[in-house]
Order: sequence, then C-alpha cells, then structure tokens
Amino acid sequence: MNIDYAMLTDLYQLTQAQGYWDHDVQDTEACFHMYFRSWPFSGGYAIACGTDQVAEMVEGYRFSDEALSYLASVRASAARPLFSQSFLDYLSDLRLSVDVDAVREGTVVFPNEPLVRVRGSILECQLLETALLNCMNFETLIATKAARVCRAAGSPVSEFGLRRAQGPAGGVWASRAAIVGGCASTSNVLAGQRFGLPVAGTHAHSWVMSFPDELTAFRAYAASFPDNCVLLVDTYDVDQGVRNAATVGLEMRARGERLKGVRIDSGDLAWHAKSARMILDEAGLTDCGIILSNDLDEHTIKSIRDEGAQVDGWGVGTKLACAYDQPTLGGVYKLGATRAPGDTAWRDHVKITGSAQKMTTPGVLDVRRYYYENGLVAGDMVFDVNSGVDDSETIVDPFDALRRKRLHGLSYEVLLHPLARKGQVVLTAQERSALAARDRAQEGLATLDESQKRMLNPHTCPVGLEKSLFDRRQDLVARLRGID
Amino acid sequence: MNIDYAMLTDLYQLTQAQGYWDHDVQDTEACFHMYFRSWPFSGGYAIACGTDQVAEMVEGYRFSDEALSYLASVRASAARPLFSQSFLDYLSDLRLSVDVDAVREGTVVFPNEPLVRVRGSILECQLLETALLNCMNFETLIATKAARVCRAAGSPVSEFGLRRAQGPAGGVWASRAAIVGGCASTSNVLAGQRFGLPVAGTHAHSWVMSFPDELTAFRAYAASFPDNCVLLVDTYDVDQGVRNAATVGLEMRARGERLKGVRIDSGDLAWHAKSARMILDEAGLTDCGIILSNDLDEHTIKSIRDEGAQVDGWGVGTKLACAYDQPTLGGVYKLGATRAPGDTAWRDHVKITGSAQKMTTPGVLDVRRYYYENGLVAGDMVFDVNSGVDDSETIVDPFDALRRKRLHGLSYEVLLHPLARKGQVVLTAQERSALAARDRAQEGLATLDESQKRMLNPHTCPVGLEKSLFDRRQDLVARLRGID
Repeated sequence: MNIDYAMLTDLYQLTQAQGYWDHDVQDTEACFHMYFRSWPFSGGYAIACGTDQVAEMVEGYRFSDEALSYLASVRASAARPLFSQSFLDYLSDLRLSVDVDAVREGTVVFPNEPLVRVRGSILECQLLETALLNCMNFETLIATKAARVCRAAGSPVSEFGLRRAQGPAGGVWASRAAIVGGCASTSNVLAGQRFGLPVAGTHAHSWVMSFPDELTAFRAYAASFPDNCVLLVDTYDVDQGVRNAATVGLEMRARGERLKGVRIDSGDLAWHAKSARMILDEAGLTDCGIILSNDLDEHTIKSIRDEGAQVDGWGVGTKLACAYDQPTLGGVYKLGATRAPGDTAWRDHVKITGSAQKMTTPGVLDVRRYYYENGLVAGDMVFDVNSGVDDSETIVDPFDALRRKRLHGLSYEVLLHPLARKGQVVLTAQERSALAARDRAQEGLATLDESQKRMLNPHTCPVGLEKSLFDRRQDLVARLRGID
Repeated sequence: MNIDYAMLTDLYQLTQAQGYWDHDVQDTEACFHMYFRSWPFSGGYAIACGTDQVAEMVEGYRFSDEALSYLASVRASAARPLFSQSFLDYLSDLRLSVDVDAVREGTVVFPNEPLVRVRGSILECQLLETALLNCMNFETLIATKAARVCRAAGSPVSEFGLRRAQGPAGGVWASRAAIVGGCASTSNVLAGQRFGLPVAGTHAHSWVMSFPDELTAFRAYAASFPDNCVLLVDTYDVDQGVRNAATVGLEMRARGERLKGVRIDSGDLAWHAKSARMILDEAGLTDCGIILSNDLDEHTIKSIRDEGAQVDGWGVGTKLACAYDQPTLGGVYKLGATRAPGDTAWRDHVKITGSAQKMTTPGVLDVRRYYYENGLVAGDMVFDVNSGVDDSETIVDPFDALRRKRLHGLSYEVLLHPLARKGQVVLTAQERSALAARDRAQEGLATLDESQKRMLNPHTCPVGLEKSLFDRRQDLVARLRGID
C-alpha cells in the first residue's frame, strides 16, 4: 500500500502554503504540537500509536509529477488556476527539512500533553498536519481500545475486525494498533505480512454449510489442520455443535493430535460457554479451549467473565477495529511558537476562542513524566524546552490555576524522542517495531495505579503545565483579551 | 494507493480455502450475497456505495510472489507450515473467474436485500469475502451518512474529515462516498485527484496566528486568493473577526473582487451566524456568505437551521468521515446456494442459529423494486433468479409470515447489474463515476415519500421475500430443526 502522503491532505493546507509562499514568510520557523484533549472511552489512559506511519510519511514525502499536474488543473475560477506555476515549481523541489519529536509507540499518554512536536518552516509544518493527525488520531484510538479490551479479557484476544473496518488501510493500521495495545494476534493477513504480526484464524459458517453435515465438515477441517484446529460450533445448534466437535476431538486424540478449541459466535455467549465447557469436560476434553466472538467489547467481556464463564480466548472485531463507542480521538495540531529567519527568540502563539478546553499552549514543548519511588506515575509536566523548568518543579492544571502539584525531588523521564532530523527519519527498526511497542505498553500500564485503569470513572493522573509556562500563558491570554 | 487485495483478508479465508482444496471441493459452485440487516442511523434508507472499489479489487486480484513467500512462512506449529506448498502453487496460478452482480452506486437500498451477489467456485467466493465486506460496509455507511447530512443542510456541504478519518485509505474512500451521498466537495486532495471529485478549502487558524494581527492575515489571504476567498473569523474573537473580514471585503469590492464568505468554527454557531449576518449586511456585504463548521452532523445542522440562522455552506468533518454515531454498517456475506460440478440444480443453504434476524435466505437472489404510478417505491422483492416470481407477485416479511404485500401489476426494475463476468470487470467508466452515482442517489431519494426520509423514526419501505422463496425457506428451516 503505497500512499502519496504529500497529497493525503486537506486542500487548505496547500492554499495556505501558497499564501505563505506568496508573502515570503514560508521560511518562518514554526513549532506545532499534536495532542488530544479528553480521555478516550471515559477511561484513565491512552496508548500512543501512529509514529511508525508518521515516519513512513516523512520518508516518502514528495510531490510527484502526477500530483503536480493534478494541482495545476485545480481552478480558483473559470478564468484562473488555484495554484500559480511558480508555487508548483517550489513544491516540486520541496524536500522536507523538519525536525520531528514524538513519544515512543506504546507509551501511556494523557490528554493535553504533546505526543508529536514538529519544528521547521511554517510551510512544511502545515503541509504535514492532516496526514499526521490522521495517523496519530486513529492508531492511538485503536491501541487504547485494544488495551482496554485486553485488560478486561484476561486470556488472549485476537483482533478480527477487517471486514467492518473503515476502509482497506484503516483495517491494516487498525490491526497493527490492536497488537500495540495488547492483542495476541490479528486475522488480517496483509497487516501480518507488512508488520510481522502474529496472525490467526480458522474457518467460517460457510465451511460447515458447504458440507453435507456438520460432523463431516469438522472431520474434514481437522484432517487439513491437525496442529491448529478450532471448530466453529454454532452454524445450526450450539450444543449439538459442541458434541460434534467433541467427537472429532476424541478422534484427533486417538491419532495423537489435539483439538485446540471450539468457537462460539452467536447466542448467549456466557450461557453457551458454560454448557460447552461441561460437554467437553464430560467427554474428557479438558484441554480443549473455548473461544468466544460476536460483537464483543470490554464491557461485554467483563460481564461474561463476571458470570463465571471460563474462556480461553476471544475474537474481537467490529467494536475494536472501528472503536465503536468512540470512533475518533479528536486530536489536534496547534501552533505553539514561531521564529523569523535570523531571530534567536521564539514568539509565543495561542488560540483563545471557543471553550477554555480549546485554548492552546504556547512555546516549544516537551513532557517530563515524574515517578514515585514505587515506580508509579506521580504526574506529567508539560514544559517549554527553551525556558526550562522552575526550581519548584510544580505543575498547574491548565484549566484551574489553583490546582497544583509539586513534583520536586522525584525522578523523571522525558517523553519526546527524536523521530526525524532535517527531514531524515532517525528511528531504529526496534523503535518502529509493533511487538516492541506492545511490550512498552504493558510496562507503561504497570506504572499506573489500578484505580487509574478502572474501566469507567477512573482516578486520573495529573497532567499540568510547568508553573512558569502556565504564568506565561496567562499573561499572553490577558494581553490578547485586553486585560491588564 | 495500490492495495494488495488478495492479502487484504482474514487468515481464515485462506485456511478455509486450503481446506476446500485439500478435500477437492474447491470447484463446487457457490452463490454468496452481501447485505446488511438493519437501518443505519435509525433512518429509512441507505445509499449503496463501494462497488467501484470492489471492481478495483477484482481487477487487481493476484497472489504476488512476495505474498506467497510470506504465506509459506506462516506456521501452524513449530514443526509444520500452515499452508502446503502445493496449495500455494495453486494460489500462485489462481485467476478470478467469478461472476459478480451488484446494485449501482448511489442506489437507495434497504436492509435484507442483496447489494452484491458473487457466483463462482466456493474457494474464490470465500477469498473475496473480507475485502468485499470492507469496501461495501464502509462506503455504504458514509454515503448514507452524507445523504442524511446533506438533506438536513439545504445548502452545499463540504466534507473535510480526513484528519479524523480511520486511516489514510479510510479517508480517501470516505471522501468519495461522501460525494456519492450528496456532498458538494471534499477537502481531500488525494481523493480529488484519484476520483475527479470537486475539492475545496481555504485556511486554518494557524494562518491568522502566524501574522502580526488578524486584519493583516486576512488582507494577505485575499491578496493571494481573490477568486476564492473565505476567511476564518474565530481565532481570537468572532464578532471582531467578522468586522475585520468586512473591512477586507469592502477593500476587495473596491478592487472589483468579492469576499465569498466567512467561516465560523467554534462557539455557538447559530448565535454567531446571526450576528455575523447582521455585521456583514450592515457593511453592505449581503453577497458574502456564512459557512459553519465544528463537529456538525445532521442533528446539529437541523437545530441551527431551526433557530433561523441563514447559512450558505457547511463544512462537515469528524462526524461524517467516521459516521460517528454508528461507525459500522454490519453488512454480512452469506452462502445462499451451492452446485456440485456437473449438476444443474442448485442446493439451498441457510444458517439458523442466533436470533431470527440473523437467519439467512437460500437461493441465487436478485431484487425487484416496484413503483407506484406516481413514481414512488411500492416495495422491494427479493427473489430467486432460478425459480422466478410467483404470479401473485406478493412479498412476505422475512420475519413475520403474516405481513404481506401484493405488488402485482406495478412496474418494476431489477436492482442487480453485472459488475464482473468470469473475473473480468464489465462496468463502464460512467457506471464507476462518483459524480454519476451522486445524481443517481438524488434521483433515488426522490422516489421515496417524505415520511420515509424523516431523520428519526421514519416510515419504512416494505422489503420482503417473494412468496415461493419465503415458503421454501420455511420448509428448509423446519427440516433442519427436525419439525414436520
């Protein structure tokens, strides 16, 4: 899937770029931050994902001849093309020279802290906005949903939502993000090939329907896949299906093979899982697992487990691959500061209309994550890398000046790491690996208190602005609003 | 964006295909139908979309050497590969020979009637399932959402959801589907290039923030884009922004140009739209339009218009591009009939577990749409092309045997049309055009009564099984359940 990332953008990024170029401000240096504003799924954390695709975008960023001739054909009016030929010539020569810093994939992240920072000419920063948001918003959302589902599941979760995913590439990146969030495997063959992910899957109802009867279908499947046999038992009648599977399981055992499991994909899953367990145990097939699927999410999984069903694996599709209950993260990409060519100091910027929650933070930002001695997260501090951190090491809630926490004396790590320098990606293969990101997510989740991982109404980690940055933002807003 | 559709599949389609091949039933002829089961968005219609991508899939379907060596590397156990080399050799030589029939894009469609029918070897039919569902589910969903939004809007809607879309290709196909559903334009440049769609867009808040003040930023933008100038007025203060835009609008008028509009992207949109209209009218700029955006969908748009705001255009992003309130259609692909090599008669198949709503329909199906003399739809009849239609031309509700409607004597058209024959796509360029599909959708919506297009709790069109088909299904289910 080769994506033309230069063209994967909103038209206004290109018109605006031409505007910068017309007014000869295209080389003003800018710093943009990507962040999201509210806790996804009403939970207490998100799992960052998408920077591998951001790196792919940076690597492949180039306006092709085909793209440029298309742009030349777009018209502002009957009389005039939208883009001038000289601007298109400029685009044709454009090679990215931005610096990009980002959290590592799999990092536990919170609202209102930058996940990605892009520094470079304002024109380049702007051109990257749409595709960067597309990657980060979607993949972070799915990795987070997967982490929630996997925590609820307890036993391995296989992602198989491709058929209900939003478009072909949506499916591929969703599968990768699901693995980062904690899934054991995916059904998606293209994603498996492309990212080296574990793939899994057995057969569908149509297999059973295409044979004269269910038992014949099961025997045929076991003959073809003796190492890897999971039988789908709900085409006609679940209990009879489990009994047919048990017959085949015993035949397999006699041949020195093992029926790995039965899958139930309809009806009352908790009820059927208990009944299937009983039938299999009575047949002596205590080593045959039970796998459930059909419209599952963290809430239905929890309810099935709360009823006492023993489940050895889960197939989760629709509600994971499109994050059914909240299908977008709503992340934004906002200008924090600019610097004219030749200047040394950055100029702060802030957008102030709309609700207080939508006010932006000025500066060139990074995040310090502070830890208690027991290894749990104490709080995240958004700070300006140029002005540094006030000695008190205090964070202030960006929306509540009197809500503060002093983090002085605690150990910390910095969350943003170089992704690209002067337009060249500097991530290692290990830093781009989905499986390494999955490990990182598990390690990160272990630094949260259980109360912060609760499915609903969790306790949340404090995230604040470093005190001097908070004060600076207050001053700037007051000035823009004409308040002394 | 070149997608390897042969690999864009669930692993179980490939394991199942190997199973068919192992048991030498791969050439059994099969007929599968793609359909959805319930009304999306609690509305009364859907707009079919996705067959252009299905055609792309059929055209490009091929197992590449790279794909085959990946498949050879997938293991069933430490000791054994999952796929046999002889099966992979078979895949390597595989060229599609299926016949595909589908509704035309833009057709108004209802639950429980086939949108796509695939006939061919059971192995090929199975291999196409996942990617076909991915296309049809997602694009039909978005085209339907767009139709709802556009009906509510009254004035032109521009889709600009790429940044919040689910993955890069999700964004591209979402933009195309939004146009099919009725949007006037999209912000998505790649989709514009690829499908010849109208593109639109102006500038972002960062444009305003990067100039010393708003008025300077507006003047600069008008200088660059005199034919196409829409100014975003809510970076600092909406009313002041509109006054600054009016200043620039009058300057443009003095130069013989026209300020096309102002865009408001935050705050109370209905309130700001009225206030902006007043400011612009007082300045004599009655020809300057008002464009609203920010988290809009059909419900918020209706409420803004109900309050009396005059709005000349709408930008709709997030909630359209991912169909926020219902992010999947839930369409399925089910086996209707099989025929062994050499046989003439088809054998019916049905899946009966789960809820009655999930029971499938046997046969090789098509749909007749009947019309009253006034041109409105009277009802849709799902019928078996081999057994034909009983003289009474009566439809029976598939879930309520005593709910029937006689359509005898009314004119009708058949909804499925050839998409591919023996693996070759037979659609014309016109039949694949998104803009032609948009016209078709408007014509189709005109055949529904207003009560059937109501946003919530609409009257629904009757869709039923042709009477003899209904009876056949009842007999088959009774037999499978052991009822005399």
